[in-house]
Amino acid sequence: MADGDLIDGLIDALRCLPGVGPRTAQRMTWHLLERHRDAGRRLAAALVEAMDRVGQCRVCRTLTEHETCAICASPRRDRSRICVVENPADVVRIETGTDYKGVYFVLMGNLSPLDGIGPRELGLEQLAQRLAEGAVSELILATGATAEGEATAHFLAEMAREHAVTATRIAQGVPLGGDLEFVDSGTLAHALSGRREVVF
Amino acid sequence: MADGDLIDGLIDALRCLPGVGPRTAQRMTWHLLERHRDAGRRLAAALVEAMDRVGQCRVCRTLTEHETCAICASPRRDRSRICVVENPADVVRIETGTDYKGVYFVLMGNLSPLDGIGPRELGLEQLAQRLAEGAVSELILATGATAEGEATAHFLAEMAREHAVTATRIAQGVPLGGDLEFVDSGTLAHALSGRREVVF
Repeated sequence: MADGDLIDGLIDALRCLPGVGPRTAQRMTWHLLERHRDAGRRLAAALVEAMDRVGQCRVCRTLTEHETCAICASPRRDRSRICVVENPADVVRIETGTDYKGVYFVLMGNLSPLDGIGPRELGLEQLAQRLAEGAVSELILATGATAEGEATAHFLAEMAREHAVTATRIAQGVPLGGDLEFVDSGTLAHALSGRREVVF
Repeated sequence: MADGDLIDGLIDALRCLPGVGPRTAQRMTWHLLERHRDAGRRLAAALVEAMDRVGQCRVCRTLTEHETCAICASPRRDRSRICVVENPADVVRIETGTDYKGVYFVLMGNLSPLDGIGPRELGLEQLAQRLAEGAVSELILATGATAEGEATAHFLAEMAREHAVTATRIAQGVPLGGDLEFVDSGTLAHALSGRREVVF
């Protein structure tokens, strides 16, 4: 359709990006080739650098170009609380949206035995060792409210109990600013059963 | 926000793509770093190759990695009709949406005196030379139905008249004020087959 393998190759390669279909990939390709070749070259360089040099934090497993991520390396973070999340994007979400001051542990997924993802693939031996060291008082389970996220949270709660560490699960309920009209029945049932006494 | 300059640099570089804002760029970055590093490296290679090696067809100015594009090089195309379009994406749209068998001339823009884009920048000397050679019988003006597209079409129609070549404008059917980018192929086919001679 386009003229030459290089153009078609770029259109094809752009489709590795999430949410980019054939038409969007085509539009991106023309945009870069017609007027933004320098930006295209900078993007290529940024990709190579990041793909080759970004690794995982040796403490919490999040993505970082350093041996230890900024949060794990910070002397101002409370190491007695570990918040377990599914991926690095969740760390950014909690950092920007809350005032949480503890540290993290990033699973890079969820337990999924059928896909061959067990405790070893999620680095749980490493987490167990941190719990065994005795400095952790609370393990906050912030995996998603999906079947996999719940199963993983359950497994982690058992692990915390074995090490006499309190496990907590982030609350499930009606989202802030959400009308009850737009809340699904499952969420509503959770919100109702998880109700708290109003304290003045 | 993210961990390290490389991750932030990639998020930033991805924003050169049209329609990619900060949140989408972040999602793309995590997607590539977490599970698709090989695809990211392939994308980088495709970018470098395309940015460096795609040039313009010496006949019609469309983007191609060859000296002459596939259409201009084809012996099966009718060289007596030249369809003038704004950009290479329009060529692809007409090729896929209609049964046009002539050749093209790609302006790579529109006349825009305020931005310093005159006939020279659009390669119109080259087009005039083709018209002067006497083998062209029809110049199809398929610039957009925008103010710039109309002005450019008018200029080209004058040029065609000077060389005693019939100028035709793609028919109404392209919605007023609409770029060719947003026109469905059926409408585009109607517009092409319903073209009318420009009468003074």
